[in-house]
Amino acid sequence: MTIVGHLINGEMSTEAKRTQDVFNPSTGAVSKQVALASVETVEEAIAAAEKAFPEWRNTPPAKRAQVMYRFKQLLEDNAAKICELIGKEHGKIVHDAGGELKRGIENVEYACGAPELLKGEHSRNVGPSIDSWSEFQPLGVVAGITPFNFPAMVPLWMFPMAIVCGNTFVLKPSERDPSSTLFIAQLLQEAGLPNGVLNVVNGDKEAVDVLLSDDRVKAVSFVGSTPIAEYIYSTATANGKRCQALGGAKNHAIVMPDADMDNAVNQLVGAAFGSSGERCMALSVAVAVGEEAANALVSKMKAAMTSLKVGAFSNEKNDFGPVITRQHQEKVNGYIDSAEADGAVIVVDGRNPEVVGYEGGFFVGATLIDGVTANMTSYQEEIFGPVLQVVRVDSMEVAMKLINDHEYGNGTCIFTRDGEAARYFSDNIQVGMVGINVPLPVPVSYHSFGGWKRSLFGDLHAYGPDAVRFYTKRKTITQRWPSSGVREGVSFSFPS
Amino acid sequence: MTIVGHLINGEMSTEAKRTQDVFNPSTGAVSKQVALASVETVEEAIAAAEKAFPEWRNTPPAKRAQVMYRFKQLLEDNAAKICELIGKEHGKIVHDAGGELKRGIENVEYACGAPELLKGEHSRNVGPSIDSWSEFQPLGVVAGITPFNFPAMVPLWMFPMAIVCGNTFVLKPSERDPSSTLFIAQLLQEAGLPNGVLNVVNGDKEAVDVLLSDDRVKAVSFVGSTPIAEYIYSTATANGKRCQALGGAKNHAIVMPDADMDNAVNQLVGAAFGSSGERCMALSVAVAVGEEAANALVSKMKAAMTSLKVGAFSNEKNDFGPVITRQHQEKVNGYIDSAEADGAVIVVDGRNPEVVGYEGGFFVGATLIDGVTANMTSYQEEIFGPVLQVVRVDSMEVAMKLINDHEYGNGTCIFTRDGEAARYFSDNIQVGMVGINVPLPVPVSYHSFGGWKRSLFGDLHAYGPDAVRFYTKRKTITQRWPSSGVREGVSFSFPS
Amino acid sequence: MTIVGHLINGEMSTEAKRTQDVFNPSTGAVSKQVALASVETVEEAIAAAEKAFPEWRNTPPAKRAQVMYRFKQLLEDNAAKICELIGKEHGKIVHDAGGELKRGIENVEYACGAPELLKGEHSRNVGPSIDSWSEFQPLGVVAGITPFNFPAMVPLWMFPMAIVCGNTFVLKPSERDPSSTLFIAQLLQEAGLPNGVLNVVNGDKEAVDVLLSDDRVKAVSFVGSTPIAEYIYSTATANGKRCQALGGAKNHAIVMPDADMDNAVNQLVGAAFGSSGERCMALSVAVAVGEEAANALVSKMKAAMTSLKVGAFSNEKNDFGPVITRQHQEKVNGYIDSAEADGAVIVVDGRNPEVVGYEGGFFVGATLIDGVTANMTSYQEEIFGPVLQVVRVDSMEVAMKLINDHEYGNGTCIFTRDGEAARYFSDNIQVGMVGINVPLPVPVSYHSFGGWKRSLFGDLHAYGPDAVRFYTKRKTITQRWPSSGVREGVSFSFPS
Amino acid sequence: MTIVGHLINGEMSTEAKRTQDVFNPSTGAVSKQVALASVETVEEAIAAAEKAFPEWRNTPPAKRAQVMYRFKQLLEDNAAKICELIGKEHGKIVHDAGGELKRGIENVEYACGAPELLKGEHSRNVGPSIDSWSEFQPLGVVAGITPFNFPAMVPLWMFPMAIVCGNTFVLKPSERDPSSTLFIAQLLQEAGLPNGVLNVVNGDKEAVDVLLSDDRVKAVSFVGSTPIAEYIYSTATANGKRCQALGGAKNHAIVMPDADMDNAVNQLVGAAFGSSGERCMALSVAVAVGEEAANALVSKMKAAMTSLKVGAFSNEKNDFGPVITRQHQEKVNGYIDSAEADGAVIVVDGRNPEVVGYEGGFFVGATLIDGVTANMTSYQEEIFGPVLQVVRVDSMEVAMKLINDHEYGNGTCIFTRDGEAARYFSDNIQVGMVGINVPLPVPVSYHSFGGWKRSLFGDLHAYGPDAVRFYTKRKTITQRWPSSGVREGVSFSFPS
Repeated sequence: MTIVGHLINGEMSTEAKRTQDVFNPSTGAVSKQVALASVETVEEAIAAAEKAFPEWRNTPPAKRAQVMYRFKQLLEDNAAKICELIGKEHGKIVHDAGGELKRGIENVEYACGAPELLKGEHSRNVGPSIDSWSEFQPLGVVAGITPFNFPAMVPLWMFPMAIVCGNTFVLKPSERDPSSTLFIAQLLQEAGLPNGVLNVVNGDKEAVDVLLSDDRVKAVSFVGSTPIAEYIYSTATANGKRCQALGGAKNHAIVMPDADMDNAVNQLVGAAFGSSGERCMALSVAVAVGEEAANALVSKMKAAMTSLKVGAFSNEKNDFGPVITRQHQEKVNGYIDSAEADGAVIVVDGRNPEVVGYEGGFFVGATLIDGVTANMTSYQEEIFGPVLQVVRVDSMEVAMKLINDHEYGNGTCIFTRDGEAARYFSDNIQVGMVGINVPLPVPVSYHSFGGWKRSLFGDLHAYGPDAVRFYTKRKTITQRWPSSGVREGVSFSFPS
Repeated sequence: MTIVGHLINGEMSTEAKRTQDVFNPSTGAVSKQVALASVETVEEAIAAAEKAFPEWRNTPPAKRAQVMYRFKQLLEDNAAKICELIGKEHGKIVHDAGGELKRGIENVEYACGAPELLKGEHSRNVGPSIDSWSEFQPLGVVAGITPFNFPAMVPLWMFPMAIVCGNTFVLKPSERDPSSTLFIAQLLQEAGLPNGVLNVVNGDKEAVDVLLSDDRVKAVSFVGSTPIAEYIYSTATANGKRCQALGGAKNHAIVMPDADMDNAVNQLVGAAFGSSGERCMALSVAVAVGEEAANALVSKMKAAMTSLKVGAFSNEKNDFGPVITRQHQEKVNGYIDSAEADGAVIVVDGRNPEVVGYEGGFFVGATLIDGVTANMTSYQEEIFGPVLQVVRVDSMEVAMKLINDHEYGNGTCIFTRDGEAARYFSDNIQVGMVGINVPLPVPVSYHSFGGWKRSLFGDLHAYGPDAVRFYTKRKTITQRWPSSGVREGVSFSFPS
Repeated sequence: MTIVGHLINGEMSTEAKRTQDVFNPSTGAVSKQVALASVETVEEAIAAAEKAFPEWRNTPPAKRAQVMYRFKQLLEDNAAKICELIGKEHGKIVHDAGGELKRGIENVEYACGAPELLKGEHSRNVGPSIDSWSEFQPLGVVAGITPFNFPAMVPLWMFPMAIVCGNTFVLKPSERDPSSTLFIAQLLQEAGLPNGVLNVVNGDKEAVDVLLSDDRVKAVSFVGSTPIAEYIYSTATANGKRCQALGGAKNHAIVMPDADMDNAVNQLVGAAFGSSGERCMALSVAVAVGEEAANALVSKMKAAMTSLKVGAFSNEKNDFGPVITRQHQEKVNGYIDSAEADGAVIVVDGRNPEVVGYEGGFFVGATLIDGVTANMTSYQEEIFGPVLQVVRVDSMEVAMKLINDHEYGNGTCIFTRDGEAARYFSDNIQVGMVGINVPLPVPVSYHSFGGWKRSLFGDLHAYGPDAVRFYTKRKTITQRWPSSGVREGVSFSFPS
Repeated sequence: MTIVGHLINGEMSTEAKRTQDVFNPSTGAVSKQVALASVETVEEAIAAAEKAFPEWRNTPPAKRAQVMYRFKQLLEDNAAKICELIGKEHGKIVHDAGGELKRGIENVEYACGAPELLKGEHSRNVGPSIDSWSEFQPLGVVAGITPFNFPAMVPLWMFPMAIVCGNTFVLKPSERDPSSTLFIAQLLQEAGLPNGVLNVVNGDKEAVDVLLSDDRVKAVSFVGSTPIAEYIYSTATANGKRCQALGGAKNHAIVMPDADMDNAVNQLVGAAFGSSGERCMALSVAVAVGEEAANALVSKMKAAMTSLKVGAFSNEKNDFGPVITRQHQEKVNGYIDSAEADGAVIVVDGRNPEVVGYEGGFFVGATLIDGVTANMTSYQEEIFGPVLQVVRVDSMEVAMKLINDHEYGNGTCIFTRDGEAARYFSDNIQVGMVGINVPLPVPVSYHSFGGWKRSLFGDLHAYGPDAVRFYTKRKTITQRWPSSGVREGVSFSFPS
């Protein structure tokens, strides 16, 4: 059976003391094994990155960017293959994988702009004949730890920017769907990246802990669940590193009485069930303001959901695929059970859907739950499945209070036509990414991604402008020259 | 005896279960008592700050800035009094306190520019008719913990920028010289700051630990020694906060053979002994490249030091004053002893100087030590006293390696006339603040302050542009409007 | 009789071959004479500015900014006197003059931020060991020519930014109300500006033509009417200078059927009649979409206008004062006559109002004209008086086409609650400054001011960020150092 | 014979009433005819651009940038063909054409960053609940007029940035070497640019005058000689357009006594004779400070020049090729004659070189002239040929005065090792682009290009950040929403 291994110093290796099954979630079958890196393997990767650093750091940014231009081209040329790899191990439909990849490529494009982005600030005459300027220099070896749900996009949030800023990188992708990530890394190598600048190690906590503790690693970027994010953040910082750790979410949409309801429903269907809800920006709660809006929302959602198709990743006609594992399928079902037990109404029930020909797959159908309240477990926790819960409230203030009181603060949106409602919402909501009639307000690659509250630990957001600052350290130089024998002396040397 | 207390919600209070002596280091006498805040007192300050936040956050930045304009004026009007307060408790000469205050005021000036600094980024058409923009919103309650050596300047690095960004603040200044800090805070109150926006609590570790653990505190800025900085950084981050913690230093000056030696010596005298060397940017090691440069440097330094005067803070003719405490005096003397024991040459010996009329003061005279090597304790640790150590090396590469191998990376400088040497140095030295013929390369207030390696924990530097990013959280809004009955519908309403 | 003269090289002078009457428009009486500078006087001012340039250019920006901090304080301290001077010669009510002055002071505040604003861009390693950076250096002598309607604010748009960028300045204010401008210039002198950095010459076309043709003047900023703006722009550029020339306006407000009509009317009253409509941002046309909105607008406007008081500048209870001259009064009345003749309905007629005790004043009362169409002269030209014309249209598209077809494109606004209508409007309207429910969308001082179409000639707008670019020239330096005997040679000098 | 025509609205056309010979300067033979556009043809191009504008303007910047990514790829893929076209009509050696093209492509790369570069500034709460932001919107139709000496690079300075900012473009390239420019435009079309967005018209003054006078053209960028630049600038601005017009140069290098002389000579050879000196950044004057430096410079230059080869464009071993026309060859020779007549010493004489097999070519050999003084015609005017003149001075101050007194201020450089001399030079020299030991200080594409004095008319420089501002107009929107029935009203709708 194929073993998915590591990319270290430009070489692929599959040696491993331990391995783990990689599943095809659409069938439930094991498709590959993934090597789990030992301490020594991770240290080898770090060593390779450290060795590659001095030369890469001294490569002019404009030349580093050329690698990214070629990388963009290779990603586009190999898109079909990447999407197939994603679909097979993650389960998302090929068109959805294509969307993920496109957003990932946009981060490579942003990295192409490094010469502009790395400009420091120059001040003439901070004092008489004294100048001062800042430079944003790379950190050295930096690490990324990425989740299963976006095996292409989230790594592409990190290493292109880190690398184009002059750092070298060790990436530990998710061990559940490692193949597309590894292939993408090989494409960057093919684009002309020197050996050792990007290294990929597959693995589990053993590998992670090396990245968090090794002194040669200067910074850690993480995306995953909040408990792990907290562990990453507190451990990396206790070891003196800079760290940004992005965690979980519970993204609410407020549906106002004046919303264009058909539009809202269209948007919510995609935002709630796309990628089986396994997105940190998935909309999992709709808060309807007023009974009229709530009734319209639920009935229109129910109608819209009848045509949704769950199925294998390879069929472009499917709307979404399986969840990642058998255990996760059971966990999602369990949340639906608990909502039901707590008195909520299961309007559309996606538990145990029939998917002909794929009976072993880890499927959960699109689920709509009405009458959800803030005290229910299914409301408080992140389900990460194709489940939309409806909460009914009497006023926008109550709706906003629900959102502001939730521990997570990743994304949110409002459906309204009213300028004042939208502005009040965007100004006062305690959430990092806000949509006005935009259900998945993932910032474009030239802005930055980050939640508030317990959805992000650290001060700088992912990708975009904040990534430049995260992946560089500021150096400030102040310069004065003593009076010059060379300049002034010369006139004495040549008496007329 | 006067008790220096707290400023909470606009009110002064001196109640305290515990107090501590405040000394006049020039005489050695106790001059005041400082109240040590209890857990409850700190929580009261945090509560006041939290209460003041919503209204202050909604005050337009341009209006917040008006308070800073008035504050600048009041600081200038009260400069003499502030310098007197600093000198009496810290010991630095009044002219030196004036310099400190001026640098502090420059940070208030930078805060006046808040409307410009808080601008977010706006993108029209991130997609068809979709706009996206970022806002930099305040965090809420933030805390600052500041050291004894700059009781005016370092607090002014922090709270003006934090407050003008819309945050409310709890400051815990050094309990060794608390009076000037508290007075400055009262001036900001007088400038029109609403109650509760700035709160000052005096105290010790008990107070600090509340600031590090209370959930209402969103961020912590710290300046002090490296061991405490590490404690602050790991504790604050483990509690989910953002944190920037600035620690110790060992700042080297490289003196090249082509340096303007008279100029270098003039600069080094001030940089090494000013403020008794109790500056995190003090130059404490001179690395002379080549025997000729070393011999010239030592002989000229020795000559220049004969006219240096150590004495009481109040005499403007003195060059520098006492160190902060009896214990610190003994510690500095101990480092000189150890250097001597390790085989270094004490060229000028400042141990136990005679200061007539101030026999009880905590004085250490200016000290020059030659023949220092990297294995000596006095080289490895931060002395924080008026001691300049000379290391002799054969090449610039060896000099740079010394600096790059040291655990600290705060400031450094080079004395040379040569463009290439300066550029090579500034590019490759592993230090955050670099001077070219500038001995104390403290960035001006519109750049940012921060060291590398174990001199700073966190990713954003203090004051200047980085402070804006540290004291705000990014919110990214993405907006699309559904087709408008209002706009398009109208034309149907008026059939011809 | 007092002669208002010039400020040249720090000295006041009133010598003049020619003078002109300065009126008090509230009474119609001549109050002062203004000296009209000869060619020689203007050349003297230019010479003074040129002489002051080298030293001022080399004064560090942070030090130049200190003058602006003091200037702000002096303007605030002398606000009452300045407003009195404005009112007496311009006629605007004291509270309106206060508003003008406040907006002017905000530009001084922006100038205080010069050290931040003047930062250039620094790039390390544009090639191997090659660095490049930009500096924004001052131009030299620059000139400003300003209109009568904002004798304090418009000059303050120009010279604080020009001067803080390191230029020296010759200002030619309006000869109709020169006293407040001259007094403000004296305050800047008092704030510590070196002699010759700011010079004021009063005068007419003779003076202007010197500023446009003298080679020592590097740039010209102008605000006035469009025909003059065109003359200034084409003449200054033909003489090789950079130039920004702001001209006339015809600012439309669209009132949508969903507008908050009471709010809209409240805002329109101030925006149309404030300062007698003598503002380039005055709202002079209301375009009502739909008959219902039009009828409501006209009837509510009529009602609101009954309480409006026109009268002398000195009475704070008056809403607005006289227009600037007898000729201008007649011109405004003539436009009302022509609208009437063209078939429009004079709903409220302000021609020849009775102002008891001020019978000689140049008063025009608030005037509302309904049924205006695009072919009327009163619609096509700028009236610059207290006249609001209502155009009735059937759709927002027609309303926008009216605006886009007009030769001017200074300001505009829309009254609506609808997000989509507002976004469509702001995106597609061919106007430089747009208000959404904001009737006078004058940008704050940290943004920039400028119209489109024939309302501005040039590429950079006035004040704010654009002013930095206008008042500086970019210098780009690229630097590489040859291999260094100093750095590398040293190690050979000391054989072991 | 092939006729080089126009690209209008995506279609090639070669119809023309008038044509002109295109030469192969290496042989002197006519190789093609170029169509000279009539007024109607230019108007057709403008009309096509105007028609294409609304849709292109509304295409999101990120999508516009995708065209530029593809364009970059196509330029790289077709580099050999482009260089052949350049060489054949311009005469520069293929490797030199490759360098030109590479610099051109770097401007396409900068254009790829449009989404970042077009960001406006957003301010929350400029007043209570009032927001303000700026947008940089395209102008409409803009025009570029480019010179013969860089038929690929200079057009690529202009239209990629203009187009990616949302404008549509009419380019009039040089009629002397039109083929490469036209081919490049076709590649952009092939990259997916919609028809009409880029139009190319070949022609002469008749075509230019249409571009300068047609109201639909909003801005003009020009590069050429100073007399024409002045004509363009004054005419375009008199017609109300924004304009940037780059003119001639006389670039001096100061050679200091401490310069690395071998390095300086190596650099000067390329900078003076590369592309036959037909570069606006060519170094045409070397100012040697001190006799010793002068003698060393002249003797080493003379030695270095012996190996220089002038010859046909197609031989990669040649160092440089012919000048552009027979007339220009005679003009360059005439300047050498005049220097000789004025008493200068022709150290190396390049007049009438023998180029075997290319006797009809327009060749001038590398020429070195010593003893040049400021009063000579050959010093005062731009020669634009392979002629380096040496001026001998006694001090750096005199050298700088020469440069500052010259009418041009495009580029300059200094050769020195001394930090202070370099800083004094770069600070005080009245030239827009400065090199420190860099002989051709052409800014990289992410900085901007522009000279001072009579080398540039306008306020914004070419390409880089300034190009964004030149090719867009600022729109500032200020927004406040009236209190919302939608938000607040809702709670009343649902009584408990």
